[in-house]
Amino acid sequence: MDIRKQSIYPVEVWDITETEFKKENNYRNETTFALSNGYIGTRGTLEEAYAFDIDTGLEGNFVNGFYESEKIRYGEANFGSPLWSQSLLNLPNLKETHVILDGEEFTMEQGKVEEYARILHMKEAILERKLLWTSPQGKQTRIHIRRLVSIARKNIMAIEYEVTPMNYSGRIEFMSKLQADVENHTRKTNPIVDYGPFGRKLDSDELRADGDILYYEGTTQNSHLSVACGSSHGIWKDGAEQKNLEWKSSVGELEAEVVTGIQAEKGETVVLEKMICYTTSLDLGKEERKSFVLAELERAQEDGMQKLEKWQKEYMAKFWEAADVEIKGNEALQQGLHFNLFHIIQSAGRDGKTGMGAKGLSGEGYEGHYFWDTEMYVLPVLVYTEPEVAKRLLDYRFRTLDQARERARILGHEKGALYPWRTINGEEASTYYPLGTAQYHINADISYALSLYLQVTGDVEYLKEKGAEILIETARVWADVGSFAECKGGKYCICDVTGPDEYNVLVDNNFYTNLMARENLRDAVGAVDYLKEHVPEVLEHLKEKLDFSVEETVLWKEIIEKMYFPYDEKRQVYPMDDGFMMRKPWDESKIPPEKRAWLYENYHPLFIMRHRMSKQADAILGMYLHSDLFSEEEIRRNYDFYQEVTLHHSSLSTCIFGIVACEIGYLEEAYQYFSQSARMDLDDYHNNFYAGIHAANMAGTWQAIANGFAGLRCQNGRLKLNPVLPKEWEEYRFRLKYKGSLLEVNVTKKEAKVTLLEGTEASLLFRGTEIRLKGEKDSYAEEI
Amino acid sequence: MDIRKQSIYPVEVWDITETEFKKENNYRNETTFALSNGYIGTRGTLEEAYAFDIDTGLEGNFVNGFYESEKIRYGEANFGSPLWSQSLLNLPNLKETHVILDGEEFTMEQGKVEEYARILHMKEAILERKLLWTSPQGKQTRIHIRRLVSIARKNIMAIEYEVTPMNYSGRIEFMSKLQADVENHTRKTNPIVDYGPFGRKLDSDELRADGDILYYEGTTQNSHLSVACGSSHGIWKDGAEQKNLEWKSSVGELEAEVVTGIQAEKGETVVLEKMICYTTSLDLGKEERKSFVLAELERAQEDGMQKLEKWQKEYMAKFWEAADVEIKGNEALQQGLHFNLFHIIQSAGRDGKTGMGAKGLSGEGYEGHYFWDTEMYVLPVLVYTEPEVAKRLLDYRFRTLDQARERARILGHEKGALYPWRTINGEEASTYYPLGTAQYHINADISYALSLYLQVTGDVEYLKEKGAEILIETARVWADVGSFAECKGGKYCICDVTGPDEYNVLVDNNFYTNLMARENLRDAVGAVDYLKEHVPEVLEHLKEKLDFSVEETVLWKEIIEKMYFPYDEKRQVYPMDDGFMMRKPWDESKIPPEKRAWLYENYHPLFIMRHRMSKQADAILGMYLHSDLFSEEEIRRNYDFYQEVTLHHSSLSTCIFGIVACEIGYLEEAYQYFSQSARMDLDDYHNNFYAGIHAANMAGTWQAIANGFAGLRCQNGRLKLNPVLPKEWEEYRFRLKYKGSLLEVNVTKKEAKVTLLEGTEASLLFRGTEIRLKGEKDSYAEEI
Repeated sequence: MDIRKQSIYPVEVWDITETEFKKENNYRNETTFALSNGYIGTRGTLEEAYAFDIDTGLEGNFVNGFYESEKIRYGEANFGSPLWSQSLLNLPNLKETHVILDGEEFTMEQGKVEEYARILHMKEAILERKLLWTSPQGKQTRIHIRRLVSIARKNIMAIEYEVTPMNYSGRIEFMSKLQADVENHTRKTNPIVDYGPFGRKLDSDELRADGDILYYEGTTQNSHLSVACGSSHGIWKDGAEQKNLEWKSSVGELEAEVVTGIQAEKGETVVLEKMICYTTSLDLGKEERKSFVLAELERAQEDGMQKLEKWQKEYMAKFWEAADVEIKGNEALQQGLHFNLFHIIQSAGRDGKTGMGAKGLSGEGYEGHYFWDTEMYVLPVLVYTEPEVAKRLLDYRFRTLDQARERARILGHEKGALYPWRTINGEEASTYYPLGTAQYHINADISYALSLYLQVTGDVEYLKEKGAEILIETARVWADVGSFAECKGGKYCICDVTGPDEYNVLVDNNFYTNLMARENLRDAVGAVDYLKEHVPEVLEHLKEKLDFSVEETVLWKEIIEKMYFPYDEKRQVYPMDDGFMMRKPWDESKIPPEKRAWLYENYHPLFIMRHRMSKQADAILGMYLHSDLFSEEEIRRNYDFYQEVTLHHSSLSTCIFGIVACEIGYLEEAYQYFSQSARMDLDDYHNNFYAGIHAANMAGTWQAIANGFAGLRCQNGRLKLNPVLPKEWEEYRFRLKYKGSLLEVNVTKKEAKVTLLEGTEASLLFRGTEIRLKGEKDSYAEEI
Repeated sequence: MDIRKQSIYPVEVWDITETEFKKENNYRNETTFALSNGYIGTRGTLEEAYAFDIDTGLEGNFVNGFYESEKIRYGEANFGSPLWSQSLLNLPNLKETHVILDGEEFTMEQGKVEEYARILHMKEAILERKLLWTSPQGKQTRIHIRRLVSIARKNIMAIEYEVTPMNYSGRIEFMSKLQADVENHTRKTNPIVDYGPFGRKLDSDELRADGDILYYEGTTQNSHLSVACGSSHGIWKDGAEQKNLEWKSSVGELEAEVVTGIQAEKGETVVLEKMICYTTSLDLGKEERKSFVLAELERAQEDGMQKLEKWQKEYMAKFWEAADVEIKGNEALQQGLHFNLFHIIQSAGRDGKTGMGAKGLSGEGYEGHYFWDTEMYVLPVLVYTEPEVAKRLLDYRFRTLDQARERARILGHEKGALYPWRTINGEEASTYYPLGTAQYHINADISYALSLYLQVTGDVEYLKEKGAEILIETARVWADVGSFAECKGGKYCICDVTGPDEYNVLVDNNFYTNLMARENLRDAVGAVDYLKEHVPEVLEHLKEKLDFSVEETVLWKEIIEKMYFPYDEKRQVYPMDDGFMMRKPWDESKIPPEKRAWLYENYHPLFIMRHRMSKQADAILGMYLHSDLFSEEEIRRNYDFYQEVTLHHSSLSTCIFGIVACEIGYLEEAYQYFSQSARMDLDDYHNNFYAGIHAANMAGTWQAIANGFAGLRCQNGRLKLNPVLPKEWEEYRFRLKYKGSLLEVNVTKKEAKVTLLEGTEASLLFRGTEIRLKGEKDSYAEEI
């Protein structure tokens, strides 16, 4: 990890500004300025559609859940190896827009860019670009482009393109394109994946241009999914729409365009309003798609950019009201936090059919797959800030239970469900099981997030309708995968799994896995007990649906009681797994610096797994999540131990270490870790931001403050806060939703305070004191 | 394993006879009747070249070491994953011969086969086929075909084709073909390998037919190896060669043929003598190949079939003299033993450039790769019976030390050599490292075989020239792969290896591996000590060549002393590895019978490795090889333990259990195991003989008698015998070469006797008594 001393972008609390266009920064900036609404994702590419090569740019437009498959080939295939890949597919681009200014086409590659700014307004989820450009022939033009992906209208992206001739009058022509000759660049963004949808994978079903409308429909070659998309256009001048303009169109095999023009006097502003719509066969049948797209475009055109921007701002205002974390004392960290929260909220699938990729919808990295990142990093943030979105992400897991059941059978479990390590459509897509399917902890991760959601929201309906089924089905796999081992005093052992730490694979008794499995089982027992007592008819229904017997919980309880954990008597710590202490000491001095961050690209897996070191938070993550089960002293010993052996070669690591450092009073270290997490992507510490955001770390930053500095936990049905203030700050403040109430936590150098902003009451443990807030604005404070 | 009650072929001590041609048995019989000389291998296909489909036949002609490569694709490639495959390539077929009998072509698919026998004469290494055939038009002909692959002439295969019209006179035409339109069937014979040289991989450089000569030269597309081959033909009648016959020839793009004919009177025998020659760019340069082939063909034609047969018989007579094991009391087992020994001796590479495939040269199974089978199963037999051949196989490993050094670097070892798990050209070809490269024990296996060779032959020159370098280089990897682990009392632990048991992968402290590694180190220390004392100049040379310091042996000695072995206190046994006792008990009743033998094809690897069971002899193999280091009681306890958990899903398992059963006096069980091993391939217990022989088990059968019933060991430089007689037998007898002498062991119901057949003296431990035989025919006997 390369921690930069200088920030890449100017430090501004609510904006990210690119002050100069440089080709060498383009690929990374495409991710920085990516926009999404959890359904459509579009990279921050430019309307001029420059011909970048594979190292400098990637036009990218995605629809969540829309993937293409390729037959995967293996050196040696194992039984149960996925046969077809799933890759988030790069879809036709509709942003492309050229303007011809009195005969000269605008391009930054010619003439002179006199003024330039591209600004991501995170408060509003609007991307803006402002230019003053002098053409080769000396004509000066102001260009002002605003872009949004509408959160209110999931199928709509909008672009407003304003042109003002500054020192001339002339004809302004707009040429808007639909480019369907697109393909993925997967190999570039993830070199160890050796397949991927190379070449064009969408076969064109329809491509047309009518008046100001462009329309495309195409179907993938293997996954047989269809996408329909189009754009519509309106021209405005002097605040009036120019309805009678003639649009010329042309249609090629894979691209189409519409062109129009209008006379503009010097100083007069001409505006193109361009609405873009995407839908797919995942939502609509063949007969409905075209009329839907055309109707959505018409509606968007009627509403206009102004209304779309208004809704966008309203939504974001509500989001920030609950989710914002205000820091006084460090604007750079404040900016990083906003950047991270902004990207999470815009990336989360919110239709219940889709999840959230480890890279959101910001690039092709990890093939757009959903991992545990969603449940363990993103969901805990959304549960407190946007519980409705959290619920929809859980819905996605519920929807894919059947595939998880099928997967459990393939793995030899007669009952239960095993969630896939990587997926889009719910089926396992990991092609290297030691780092994929062996990560059984995904089951417990999903259950953990679900339980947290239930505890924090109190949404009992969800438990009844969906939650209990997930908990029972995941628990069943835990009850089958291990066994009570005589050689371990009859304790329950789980062998041959990979924990979160991907440098120690196929281990026995991974501490994190065993801990999380036990809690998964405990939550499942709790769910069954609850149903039995309160809604026996739901339990009856599940017994029938799942061929489930309450008798199964007898074994579950025995496992809960007898779960085995590796323990090192001498150091009094929990080694990551049974064999961890036996491994060769890691000697970093033998690893050339340029190879350190990418061990898997430079060393054989056997070399890596043979050493006593850890890629990322593993046991420590478990101790954070279930901190109530360990003494502070115990956590400190383990933290000290893992601090020594952890390389933080995953973006998922530092935020967790920071949180645990808070727990044990290591504020200095916590602050260092937090600082790294907060600006990791914005300053591109991993040098791979071009491939997409690191959603988990972004969410981890919020956790680092709320769960770290403020000591937020919801364990055993009880909300806890234990705030401290890093000495570098004056004050911080954030809000959280809890069982329908909205609380604010405010920590200054003098006091720590919690206020009930909305709702009638809230009980919680505040710095060890049981408190109860009643009525709005009721608050409780302690000196610190 | 399907143990047949009825033998497939008639029980005959020295022959294997197919009494009737049935298409459904063809694919298997092609392996049964395969011939080889360790250089050329040819499957027992028929001269008529019937058009069998992929499930009923595979024409196969191979040259040891000649492979084609394909780019391997991985779902996710790891650093160090081989990028190019190596597959023994199926070469142009020259056996194809058609005879036209007075206008009617001989084919078993028409007319009537009145008499039929195909006989493999194992004593002579000659394959014979005898037919009496009546054509559709009623003409009766005797056909008699003899085939051999010459051991005296490594490039030559010969066919003698006799035709006798029985009830007619007419023209007999011979059409001999060269068929270069050949390709491998790898996918069929090893379904979990997902690449392989599909399609034709040889590009034709030259194809011609001149007079009675067919000639072909071609080059592979990726490995860029060239093969040259051809055939020559002579016609004989009435004992005289018919020199003036006209040969017509035709040459197509990928096939060529020569045709001639001659009048035969009723009862008169016409003979085609066909010589076939193969050579490759591995032996000869481009300029030499053609002239070499033509010269070899001419020489073979001059020598004629008779001389080739004579040499073949002479060689085999000498081989059997040393290697035969005579059993009185069970002809079926005797036949199985002969079959097994025959296939081993004919399959072993003997030019020092090639090894021996796990399937010999009998088929495409395992892509023709060399594994540990050679060193641990075949070499111990050859060391005692054909030490020259054993030495040439060791030469192959010496020749490929550079590739092994390169591989060690890839695995992160700064010094030493790591041999490949699977290979042809010396580079690692295993594409799934948990079952491939992780089997580090290959290093110790090669060193074990080498040490055994040195002890049994006393070939000190070999130690100096090649052996010491192998021992030092392999030892260095053992000294680097593990570490002294505090949590194991400072013992030396080796993590993340796979032992011989392929159902327990990537384990810590595999008992077999740790044991064999320690002995590898011990042998290396011994070699260094020997050189230091006796030939310091050789040591100096090695120090320079290998950048080796004698100081390194300090660490080696510490490791030898402190090697860790997993131990179960309660059972007083050595578990296979650290985690073995913790695994789930195996419940065979949950596995449908049809899935039991092929777990990897029906179950996910995680399911398999999670259970407490074993595919094959693992710890038990180590205890056999180093039985002097364990008490009988200890071995018995471990045998009893592993007996319970071993599934014998490898052909390498039962022979070893049989040997150890002898060691501990379990004669009944030993006999059962031996019987399975002896007839495993001949009766096709594994139902996959079509893909090629199981060379390891074949060799294991000899070991089951010599090392099993006769208790043969050579440990710590000392030869030992401890014979017993299974109650089912009257008597058995075998011979062995020891330090230049030839010994015979003869065990009857009354006595066990050892005789010095050749040589001046031999010292050994016989049933615990130190004896010394002096002078020829000196013998020692004890009542039993």
